[in-house]
Amino acid sequence: MTSSTELTHRYRRYIDVLNRRDWPALGEFVADEVTHNGRPLGLAGYRAMLEQDVRDIPDLRFRIELLVCEPPHLAARLRFQCTPAGRFMGLDVNGRSVDFTENVFYTWRDGRVAEVHSVIDKAAIEAQLR
Amino acid sequence: MTSSTELTHRYRRYIDVLNRRDWPALGEFVADEVTHNGRPLGLAGYRAMLEQDVRDIPDLRFRIELLVCEPPHLAARLRFQCTPAGRFMGLDVNGRSVDFTENVFYTWRDGRVAEVHSVIDKAAIEAQLR
Repeated sequence: MTSSTELTHRYRRYIDVLNRRDWPALGEFVADEVTHNGRPLGLAGYRAMLEQDVRDIPDLRFRIELLVCEPPHLAARLRFQCTPAGRFMGLDVNGRSVDFTENVFYTWRDGRVAEVHSVIDKAAIEAQLR
Repeated sequence: MTSSTELTHRYRRYIDVLNRRDWPALGEFVADEVTHNGRPLGLAGYRAMLEQDVRDIPDLRFRIELLVCEPPHLAARLRFQCTPAGRFMGLDVNGRSVDFTENVFYTWRDGRVAEVHSVIDKAAIEAQLR
């Protein structure tokens, strides 16, 4: 069993990988059979999702605001201040700056993320576009 | 410092209070100066928010799907299968059954919830109304 300190450290390295767009390193942190909100994406599908996110939001940067770790689970509140180029979550953002959060739970197996349960604060984005 | 086991037990009692609509007991679990997504609601405002939720969704029931505890923080993924009577989150639900989650972080002080950071999966509700 990985300790809470080790898992937290590992998670911070994973977030660094995302912020560096270091996709070849993703497999060190994400399991081959990863699921996202119940969908069996697998590592390739997970990478494709992240690559699409970065195409939609070139200045996407993951910032950890709150981290709660109780192995094998880790929960994080992530904060994004970014400018989606066109549509994002079905909303016409079109290059405006938005500030929103994602509350996300990870289940880890053998040092890699096996399950992700994420909710993005779409209502907050809508409020900023009004 | 409250232990993880104690805090988890306390949180489950808080959820029971919500499911029983036992508003007079709320102050045992929620701090007088509680904030919700940064808004300083206070206990009275927090109770008013919950009472409004229950008016909007008479069959509202809080179910814990995942719980991650690292005192003084606790994170929960809550699952709702319910029928909002009219509008909910700006959506015309109008008595249809919806199934959605809330990912929520709590910061506890002196055995009571002092900060809540919540995100409700509005996109999931929208998808069910299409």
